[in-house]
Amino acid sequence: MPVSEVNVSLSSQEPSGQPVQDVHVLRPLRIAIFGFGTVGSSVARILTESQPEGLKLTHVFNRGVARKRVDWAASDVVWSEDSEAVLTSDADVIVELVGGLDPAGVWIRRALAAGKSVVTANKKLIAFHGVELERLAAAHGGHLKYGAAVAGGIPVIPGLEQGLAGDRIDRIEGILNGTCNFILSKMEEGAEYATVLATAQARGYAEADPTEDVGGFDARAKLAILMRLALRVEVNPEEIVPRPITTISAVDFSYARDLGCTIRQVARAQRTDGTVAATVGPMLVDSRSPLAWSRGTENMVILSGHYGGDVVFSGHGAGGHPTAVAVVSDLLALAHGSRRVGLPSAKATVAAEFEVPHYIRFLVDDRPGIVSEITGALARERINIRAIVQKPGYPQHALPFVVTVEPCKSSALQRALEQMKLMDCLLEAPLDLQMLE
Amino acid sequence: MPVSEVNVSLSSQEPSGQPVQDVHVLRPLRIAIFGFGTVGSSVARILTESQPEGLKLTHVFNRGVARKRVDWAASDVVWSEDSEAVLTSDADVIVELVGGLDPAGVWIRRALAAGKSVVTANKKLIAFHGVELERLAAAHGGHLKYGAAVAGGIPVIPGLEQGLAGDRIDRIEGILNGTCNFILSKMEEGAEYATVLATAQARGYAEADPTEDVGGFDARAKLAILMRLALRVEVNPEEIVPRPITTISAVDFSYARDLGCTIRQVARAQRTDGTVAATVGPMLVDSRSPLAWSRGTENMVILSGHYGGDVVFSGHGAGGHPTAVAVVSDLLALAHGSRRVGLPSAKATVAAEFEVPHYIRFLVDDRPGIVSEITGALARERINIRAIVQKPGYPQHALPFVVTVEPCKSSALQRALEQMKLMDCLLEAPLDLQMLE
Repeated sequence: MPVSEVNVSLSSQEPSGQPVQDVHVLRPLRIAIFGFGTVGSSVARILTESQPEGLKLTHVFNRGVARKRVDWAASDVVWSEDSEAVLTSDADVIVELVGGLDPAGVWIRRALAAGKSVVTANKKLIAFHGVELERLAAAHGGHLKYGAAVAGGIPVIPGLEQGLAGDRIDRIEGILNGTCNFILSKMEEGAEYATVLATAQARGYAEADPTEDVGGFDARAKLAILMRLALRVEVNPEEIVPRPITTISAVDFSYARDLGCTIRQVARAQRTDGTVAATVGPMLVDSRSPLAWSRGTENMVILSGHYGGDVVFSGHGAGGHPTAVAVVSDLLALAHGSRRVGLPSAKATVAAEFEVPHYIRFLVDDRPGIVSEITGALARERINIRAIVQKPGYPQHALPFVVTVEPCKSSALQRALEQMKLMDCLLEAPLDLQMLE
Repeated sequence: MPVSEVNVSLSSQEPSGQPVQDVHVLRPLRIAIFGFGTVGSSVARILTESQPEGLKLTHVFNRGVARKRVDWAASDVVWSEDSEAVLTSDADVIVELVGGLDPAGVWIRRALAAGKSVVTANKKLIAFHGVELERLAAAHGGHLKYGAAVAGGIPVIPGLEQGLAGDRIDRIEGILNGTCNFILSKMEEGAEYATVLATAQARGYAEADPTEDVGGFDARAKLAILMRLALRVEVNPEEIVPRPITTISAVDFSYARDLGCTIRQVARAQRTDGTVAATVGPMLVDSRSPLAWSRGTENMVILSGHYGGDVVFSGHGAGGHPTAVAVVSDLLALAHGSRRVGLPSAKATVAAEFEVPHYIRFLVDDRPGIVSEITGALARERINIRAIVQKPGYPQHALPFVVTVEPCKSSALQRALEQMKLMDCLLEAPLDLQMLE
């Protein structure tokens, strides 16, 4: 039986006028999991325990699969370390949980070209090649679903596609990286960056090399995906310049608290008059705002619609089980014949220009005239100062103090900061953070 | 052309192996709006302004439609006060926004029986007859969608069906009625019930007869719908006993604050060991909990999944534009051939038995021995007291004081309260509220 005939949905007879088969399944979707790590094993666990009607785990591919094999899966599951054999098997859907661009991308392209459907949690691949892969799927009669790629267990992608398609989303603000949120919310409670990072690594929340997370690269891939679905713009993720959270120290949390704020890694994008701005990095968020509610590894997404106003989604963005829920939900949607509400998107370039208030923290070897020089640099760019805060208790030769400014263009502030960097009393480059209001 | 041929989805050619038409639409869905009030007019506004591909407003039905007619809609829209003519027209989808069981139910049944699809915001009809109407739709090749029926602008129904289908939801907690939330969050700030109700009525947030809202009937219909989709149980909404918010007074907010809480109308349901419990009414919620974040007319739904943990949705639950976004999104999903992920549900009876802590507020004509009698009644039911709080400043002859108790069965507490009601010093029946933890 050719794959194109096998890979029909359960409700495929519907357009011919027959009753919809919502519940009674004609033939289960045959599922091959690629990558049997935490998420892959959770997917298998849910499929085995819950036995969702219409889904059957048939293959597991992993390098050195022998050590992965579990005794609780059905005895007829094929465990294989031969990707080629699984790709050419009678599986209808490939669940790709290996991550990264290659070889995951090669496998997904081969599966789609063969008319199979693909469910993936691979944010990087979808951020960089999602449009191309969706076209490939459509051209061969298969489907590509990636609800697990952004904010794992939170149904933001289905919510957007199926429940907010009727709105025009103008703004996205998200806490999209659980590792950064864990680190920053622990630092808020007084812990030091290095200590929390070590804890996060010990608990499996952070990689040995945490750059993808703390550098903002993971969050920017997710933001690029959300931008396509919500703002309907196709962007090159590399045009979104991330800022690392590693520049934040205890003194910033102390100043933030005095300003009624805390600090979170925020991914934000907005559309204004035909231009699209996006950025990822640590930002000051009001302690009473939803973004400050997120603690530990939680994720949160706030979508602002022209008609519907703000919608907030929050929950567990990562981890084996929450991510697996998104994967299994995508599989059920495929089995029930649910289709993407594919809205038109257009290519766009990303600007980094926001007009928002900023927090600027200086670390100086104190001497007379510093404040005058700093405020002079701001004045030359017509940036208004909101507050100058200097807390007691720090040494004169390594004195941190903070200037907050009224909403100003990012480019104007950058020019002012370039001038300030010439000041010889600065012990390090000023730290500037957007303030979300 | 018979209706059954017209009413195919845009991607209907897909199962035969042709490319999916995600964006290019073959023939727009022809849309008839029944009920041109706030929501109906917002739906027409979005369809006219945004011109979503694949959707075309063709008919508007309303009694006395002449006074409803607007000049910004397309000139070829048919404005009619003849429901029969519109139901038998060439419209593919009926958007029912009249509300109530009858005649809305008659119209919807006739449309579905003719093979048309229906999009509705009618929570009462769906709560009482949703299962039957879905079967009717399936039997005639049409579809029934009601994303706007619960929490209007918040995509909780699509999120549940498409993004959480892979989980097993064990618990629902929701702020599902914007009127009650507006009233209670204003009372939290110090306003009196009657004053806030009048404001809500003046702003159009509350009806002249507010019983549906403040009595909990509106929220219980929405809860019944969520219970079917999330807990997968079909219940008779009338088995969910609502408690009105009218029993709450300023003194309760004062005591709640001392306990680190506030008061919200909460709809909750949970499944434990094969039994299903559900209730709607004012409850004490921890000030640090998500439910306390909801202010004004906002709605919030928290779903607790066995695998994915808690997911929180919040936003504008009602109002013309947010509700219209849900309607238009449902229309787009129909146009794109997206199908419900229909999961099996089973009939169940609703218990009111929760095992949670309670807040009990007494109003007494003070005399010696009262506390002893109350604590005696609780002790006989083996209910442990957590705290007894009596704030100063109230008159002896009308003294409010509060007892909080450790988690106990609702039935045991009811027996204790029945005993207490025999005490002649009580000026009114004790007010007991569940405390959410």
